[in-house]
Amino acid sequence: MRATVDLNADGGEGFGAYTIGADTELLRSVTSLNVACGAHAGDPVVIRAVIRAAAAAGVAVGAHPGFPDLQGFGRRAMQIASTDLVAMLIYQIGAVAALAASEGTRLRHVKAHGALYNMAVADAALAGAIAEAMSAFDGLWLYAPRDSAMAAAAESRGIMVAYEAFLDRGYRRDGTLVPRTEPGALLTDPAQVAARAVTLVTDGTVTASDGTSISLRPRTLCVHSDTPGAGALAAAARAALRAAGVRVAPPWSVP
Amino acid sequence: MRATVDLNADGGEGFGAYTIGADTELLRSVTSLNVACGAHAGDPVVIRAVIRAAAAAGVAVGAHPGFPDLQGFGRRAMQIASTDLVAMLIYQIGAVAALAASEGTRLRHVKAHGALYNMAVADAALAGAIAEAMSAFDGLWLYAPRDSAMAAAAESRGIMVAYEAFLDRGYRRDGTLVPRTEPGALLTDPAQVAARAVTLVTDGTVTASDGTSISLRPRTLCVHSDTPGAGALAAAARAALRAAGVRVAPPWSVP
Amino acid sequence: MRATVDLNADGGEGFGAYTIGADTELLRSVTSLNVACGAHAGDPVVIRAVIRAAAAAGVAVGAHPGFPDLQGFGRRAMQIASTDLVAMLIYQIGAVAALAASEGTRLRHVKAHGALYNMAVADAALAGAIAEAMSAFDGLWLYAPRDSAMAAAAESRGIMVAYEAFLDRGYRRDGTLVPRTEPGALLTDPAQVAARAVTLVTDGTVTASDGTSISLRPRTLCVHSDTPGAGALAAAARAALRAAGVRVAPPWSVP
Amino acid sequence: MRATVDLNADGGEGFGAYTIGADTELLRSVTSLNVACGAHAGDPVVIRAVIRAAAAAGVAVGAHPGFPDLQGFGRRAMQIASTDLVAMLIYQIGAVAALAASEGTRLRHVKAHGALYNMAVADAALAGAIAEAMSAFDGLWLYAPRDSAMAAAAESRGIMVAYEAFLDRGYRRDGTLVPRTEPGALLTDPAQVAARAVTLVTDGTVTASDGTSISLRPRTLCVHSDTPGAGALAAAARAALRAAGVRVAPPWSVP
Repeated sequence: MRATVDLNADGGEGFGAYTIGADTELLRSVTSLNVACGAHAGDPVVIRAVIRAAAAAGVAVGAHPGFPDLQGFGRRAMQIASTDLVAMLIYQIGAVAALAASEGTRLRHVKAHGALYNMAVADAALAGAIAEAMSAFDGLWLYAPRDSAMAAAAESRGIMVAYEAFLDRGYRRDGTLVPRTEPGALLTDPAQVAARAVTLVTDGTVTASDGTSISLRPRTLCVHSDTPGAGALAAAARAALRAAGVRVAPPWSVP
Repeated sequence: MRATVDLNADGGEGFGAYTIGADTELLRSVTSLNVACGAHAGDPVVIRAVIRAAAAAGVAVGAHPGFPDLQGFGRRAMQIASTDLVAMLIYQIGAVAALAASEGTRLRHVKAHGALYNMAVADAALAGAIAEAMSAFDGLWLYAPRDSAMAAAAESRGIMVAYEAFLDRGYRRDGTLVPRTEPGALLTDPAQVAARAVTLVTDGTVTASDGTSISLRPRTLCVHSDTPGAGALAAAARAALRAAGVRVAPPWSVP
Repeated sequence: MRATVDLNADGGEGFGAYTIGADTELLRSVTSLNVACGAHAGDPVVIRAVIRAAAAAGVAVGAHPGFPDLQGFGRRAMQIASTDLVAMLIYQIGAVAALAASEGTRLRHVKAHGALYNMAVADAALAGAIAEAMSAFDGLWLYAPRDSAMAAAAESRGIMVAYEAFLDRGYRRDGTLVPRTEPGALLTDPAQVAARAVTLVTDGTVTASDGTSISLRPRTLCVHSDTPGAGALAAAARAALRAAGVRVAPPWSVP
Repeated sequence: MRATVDLNADGGEGFGAYTIGADTELLRSVTSLNVACGAHAGDPVVIRAVIRAAAAAGVAVGAHPGFPDLQGFGRRAMQIASTDLVAMLIYQIGAVAALAASEGTRLRHVKAHGALYNMAVADAALAGAIAEAMSAFDGLWLYAPRDSAMAAAAESRGIMVAYEAFLDRGYRRDGTLVPRTEPGALLTDPAQVAARAVTLVTDGTVTASDGTSISLRPRTLCVHSDTPGAGALAAAARAALRAAGVRVAPPWSVP
């Protein structure tokens, strides 16, 4: 059976007069777009426009909810009660789902953003809140790391999970990411990112910062929209995957 | 055939630590609650809680979207492009619709808030934006004044409209409201409000500030949540309507 | 020499149409008002109005800056870089200082709000940021607990510190507050609060939750504006202090 | 006597992760920078950084307050009560003044932003609010069009006004700007902008869209930071002015 993987990136992160990211370039290569939901980034006009562009490009859209912190772009840890978080996430996902419907498409997945993603990898209460919020919708997949609290909480509620690996971030031996303040945190060489994409799919592994090989077996691969040259990285990964005979498609689309 | 009318009020207008309005009292008497959507007021936690309370009280919920102006409570006129407004309204209505679904209920209507309502009474572009946004959802009624641009735009798209009259605001001869800065703008006597409710339903008329009788023939009656004694006004209106043999129920519920 | 103590409370915490707190009642009894700065609460119109009222009542005003989190009222922990915090605090204090000047008065002190206060008690980086921000202004006192990182950082920069005790919160043996989720966290009996105020000034001590007496020796006493009956608590404390021969006045006013 | 003119542009308009404008390039050529104040754009961290850069470049800083509408970048008309506006402006100017002081410099002028600027050209109530707010500070100049309500209100309070002309915007015969939706609204040719700068200073005039020459006699010339190639336009204007023997300096610096 032919290997399949999804390629995802963030989009719709502008706000009013502010633009950010690389929506146009990324939509040429990715198969799933994580759409900002108006809390950490995105406003209704920007969100609607990127959903329209994704639909026109045949790219699936998902919700990318985050903490209510536009100034910190959702990257600052916040102490949010999990019951409050459930309401915040339903609000954000519901808003973007309605904009998707108005453009003749629908949400296919959810990926938590920034500090929320990082915290919910290990925090069972936050992970449970994400799963509970997703239960208010039908048929959404969660993008989350394998063996995370976030994945476990979703699976315990019967939510499909696509395990995720990052193409442009260094990994440590224990499977966590190299912090952005340390050398090797970011990969910006298209050839290296492309090779990594292929190995992650065909072998299931990535080489950690200490040289050991670690197993991730991902179902979706992420390029961060704010990594320099993100569009080129995604294009290189897409081309290399195809050349290696890998099918690039969203997780829900597989027969 | 027995006369029927709806009784509506605003709710869910708190924000974080801030409370406002009279949700608990009003839910005892009204049949429709206009739920703030997080732009002019309301946050996801507050919104979800009031939807839960309304569902428990058997009160129908609708979306009450407004301008993105928390500081001005959506009461300051803003120059918003109508295409932008469409996206803003779909976002707001979709967010609240998802919270309603998560509580086992559904949105039944939309009522524009504050300056948006006032402007869309006469502004065809804004009125069209409201109707266009509502077209992204199924089966929502619009609450709007008879003979308004807002009602006309909705009807031209096949949206059901419940004509609205205000129980606690003075009317001028031309059918517009007495401005809040003038005497007679606000009615706070429960007996007067109750009598007015009955006359509006049985006769279709209200007495304007100059003593003339004007025809409104409303399908829904509003008590403003920030009028002093709003809960008592709604209770008085409800009791008087029942005593007069009027059925009090949402517009969509009528066979 | 006659004992002197300051009585402080928060004010100006409304936002637009939202009111909160007990400004009018508290201004009758306190000698210092901690004025919200527009980040966790307060808007320019509300802030200016409460400064005007404080000036008319002869109550000193200080800045009460907090995290940029209106929805959480500044009570949720946030991970803010200390260099960013310096800019945020100068911004907030400067804005309120200008409004004070426009009302013919001036800021006399700074008191951190909510989660920022709690975190800076022990976090040297946050404490240093507060002190650094205050160094951009002349002659401001800091209100902070004795033996806190916040007090130490200020004193190391030559900033005057008024040590603070809370009249309406339970203390544990180690000098920390009884968490709000536990019994004994909140004191709402005016007689008990009044007796505590006197003992804190004349003896320097308070009885902790386990019955032991702990030494706080405060220069300022706080009543929280959202404690039920805050106005009555402040009035009772003020009257009891006077009856005990204690002078009630801000720290900077003492010869 | 040698002719003198100021060259101004906007700066500090980023917000969190969002960057916008051309701060670095513009600081090489302008003599005054209008610094966003956190309402329509700018956050404390961004504002402080641009003030530091301006001080290092020897560029004077002023406050550039606007409507509280980040999503609309302060460009949407809003109905703000003039008494509320006074408080909003003191808040914004005071915040930026404190950040300037913390960087060892001081504010020299105020220029209203976007819709506020446009409305206050003709609206006496808004113009009066700007002048009243500025009266809370010492020695600030106002940048405003000659013969505007904004200039008149300031002058009636003894505030110095530097009359402004726009280098990159088309003018109509009546002295108003060609709307951005019409051809000729924007000038992006450096040579044309440079020639215009010299004529505005040496002759006091500009050629309107119908070919007539109109008199503006400006004391300060603006290049919009979001005009494509803004940095190059400012550099060309600066070089041409110097070549023509014009002194380029802020209005307050002239002996």
